[in-house]
Amino acid sequence: MKEKSKKLSTESYKGVRDFYPEDMFVENYIFNIMQDTAESFGYNEYTASLLEPTALYEAKTGDEIVNEQTYTFTDRGGRSVTLRPEMTPTIARMVAARKHNLSFPLRWYSIPNVFRYERPQRGRLREHWQLNADIFGVNGIDAEVEIVSLAYHIMKNFGAKGENFEIRLSYAGMLQEFLIDEFGLNDTDVRALVRVIDKVGKITEADFTKEVSAILGDEGSAQLEILTSNKDELKQKLQKHKGFAYCKDVAEQLTNMGITDTTVSLEPFLTRGFDYYTGLIFEVFDTSEENNRSLFGGGRYDNLLDIFEAEGVPAVGFGMGDVTMRDYLETHNLLPEYETPTDLYICTLAKDKIPFARTLAERLRREGLNVAINVTDKKVGTQIQYAVKQSIPFIICLGDDELKKKVFMLKKLSTGEEKEVAEDDLVSLIFNSVT
Amino acid sequence: MKEKSKKLSTESYKGVRDFYPEDMFVENYIFNIMQDTAESFGYNEYTASLLEPTALYEAKTGDEIVNEQTYTFTDRGGRSVTLRPEMTPTIARMVAARKHNLSFPLRWYSIPNVFRYERPQRGRLREHWQLNADIFGVNGIDAEVEIVSLAYHIMKNFGAKGENFEIRLSYAGMLQEFLIDEFGLNDTDVRALVRVIDKVGKITEADFTKEVSAILGDEGSAQLEILTSNKDELKQKLQKHKGFAYCKDVAEQLTNMGITDTTVSLEPFLTRGFDYYTGLIFEVFDTSEENNRSLFGGGRYDNLLDIFEAEGVPAVGFGMGDVTMRDYLETHNLLPEYETPTDLYICTLAKDKIPFARTLAERLRREGLNVAINVTDKKVGTQIQYAVKQSIPFIICLGDDELKKKVFMLKKLSTGEEKEVAEDDLVSLIFNSVT
Repeated sequence: MKEKSKKLSTESYKGVRDFYPEDMFVENYIFNIMQDTAESFGYNEYTASLLEPTALYEAKTGDEIVNEQTYTFTDRGGRSVTLRPEMTPTIARMVAARKHNLSFPLRWYSIPNVFRYERPQRGRLREHWQLNADIFGVNGIDAEVEIVSLAYHIMKNFGAKGENFEIRLSYAGMLQEFLIDEFGLNDTDVRALVRVIDKVGKITEADFTKEVSAILGDEGSAQLEILTSNKDELKQKLQKHKGFAYCKDVAEQLTNMGITDTTVSLEPFLTRGFDYYTGLIFEVFDTSEENNRSLFGGGRYDNLLDIFEAEGVPAVGFGMGDVTMRDYLETHNLLPEYETPTDLYICTLAKDKIPFARTLAERLRREGLNVAINVTDKKVGTQIQYAVKQSIPFIICLGDDELKKKVFMLKKLSTGEEKEVAEDDLVSLIFNSVT
Repeated sequence: MKEKSKKLSTESYKGVRDFYPEDMFVENYIFNIMQDTAESFGYNEYTASLLEPTALYEAKTGDEIVNEQTYTFTDRGGRSVTLRPEMTPTIARMVAARKHNLSFPLRWYSIPNVFRYERPQRGRLREHWQLNADIFGVNGIDAEVEIVSLAYHIMKNFGAKGENFEIRLSYAGMLQEFLIDEFGLNDTDVRALVRVIDKVGKITEADFTKEVSAILGDEGSAQLEILTSNKDELKQKLQKHKGFAYCKDVAEQLTNMGITDTTVSLEPFLTRGFDYYTGLIFEVFDTSEENNRSLFGGGRYDNLLDIFEAEGVPAVGFGMGDVTMRDYLETHNLLPEYETPTDLYICTLAKDKIPFARTLAERLRREGLNVAINVTDKKVGTQIQYAVKQSIPFIICLGDDELKKKVFMLKKLSTGEEKEVAEDDLVSLIFNSVT
């Protein structure tokens, strides 16, 4: 008697996803919109391995990420290697490596997967894919205008209505300088305070007040609360900062180019998790009640290439994640219905029809049709049910008559319509649907 | 004076690749042919994370891979995790997980990246991408015929000539059983001998003879050499094995469906690196002198799902790597010329033309054109040189006249042809090229 051995679990690793064909369809839909829109703006695709030398992330990313959230390990040759937590250091490395051979401006995009070791939760997984679009080599505001308008057009191409998202602008360092001026804070305190401000909406109001008080004292905390609830006064105070005028200028140019159905506003409390930003920063925000959150963002990072021997390459870019976008599309009822790429299923009335089915399929494929054939012993009724379950739109069934006459009854499964078709007309009829 | 700090290297991690737009173009070309051909056969795309629980690979893959060649590490939560060295265990896991909800046969494909820690060399890197195409739920020979013909058609769709590759068939266990019969070997010795046979062409003849002698003795080694050089005698001896007839049957059906420009042969010494094969195995082989090597292969693995609680799901599939295929296409001069996705570059005679360039670009994008615009201060001549270097096929230049009249001089950069075009006709003229 054979002993029953312990069986393996079919679960994936924690916090990552399996993509069955239906999931892959949605994923590809999201990727295609990102890709088509980026290419419509003249962006070229690049990519790299997700394995990077750990040193790449020790130089200039947000502390939290390097210290607590990366997947870092030592390979069998003793090298420290990290699964990239974001794509920006990689693109900076690639651009720096060929700085003297590339012609600027560069417009590049990629849809890499990135990794963070964190507790999986809604909108945050250990692995997600992320469109990265970046323009290198442009100092002026036109780079920001282009990048933000690319982000806007991706949203529109997903079918998002202008009122269902907004664009928030700020400027790296502006909030910090303001806090230093207003409260006389030192660098450590201002850093800590910005981190707390970054948690607004993610922690309770009571916790927020408590954490702010710990840094500013009760009086300072109350003063900050007044400012956050009275944005006009705050903006008044920010006007002297160069970033304020820059944000206003970007907003104005976006309006001038016809982006008028979406709110574009200055959001002084907007901060980004990375240290490398040097100018405009922005976020696209979901305005719905159910999913009221930041969707994605980016900004200008003019000094990142300085960590290599490649100073002076200004850059603006953003990263847009697939998990967040999928949630957004779901919230706003913008997800497409599943469609299989297969156009036609060839059923066979008996096993001896399979060789003919193969030859016919081969001919139809040459003419551009995607064709699957039955290769089972199952009854023809079961074969048809199978085609229905696979969402394949058309079937034909092969018996002796069909083989002899080379004429087939083409059936559209969604409506039940049938039409007699000669072999030569199958492809055009399917491409033009059944009439 | 600022101290010069140590700069980071721009090199990627060892044994992996950066894909600049020109590399990405080739990679996408390869992926698109794989994808289109798989879909033309009715295959649906799936994927999964490259992070898998290590236990998945301890059950039934080749020893060498599990013990020496995986990227395996412990995550911050104490889980042992492996970067997948191949996709088959993952697809088996996914099919097993939904065995009762999926309708069989399943035709699935994916183009995942897979990882092996080994010394990088021609055709073998630490990370490569690999088409995996599999059919689940079919016991009969029709599954093998379909899978091998899919592999054949991918080669043809790459532009490969029938005489530039061949298809070699064998059957899992056939060689082993023959060696046991012929030389009276035990399990350990037969395993060791098959490994040596697997090295044919990768090690010198002298080393081969030495390694074989160590197992079979000098006499046995000479006997084996006679058999390897006289394949007809070997085939004679194999005829009683069920695998022999099976291979013959597959070859015959491939011929019957019109695959006659490529050699399909029985290759008794063909072995595959994985333990899970249970029936037909095959390899596609480059017949050229410069690149005389196995390109890719696969076979039937009917018991792999048994490692989960999901017995009795037969499967046939193969994996085809991007590095090997790129080498093949290079060897046979089948690589395509680089093309950028961008159709048109809009040059500007002065900075104040940029807002109009943006609006015009936006309109052309809505009509389906991919348009980049100048956002630099550079002279128009430099802008045109830039477009040439980017391989962008068309340009227009915006000055005062163009803004006033909305008529543009469209220039095709490859020929220098120019034509005056009204704004409304730009898109159709570019799509139909300059006439």
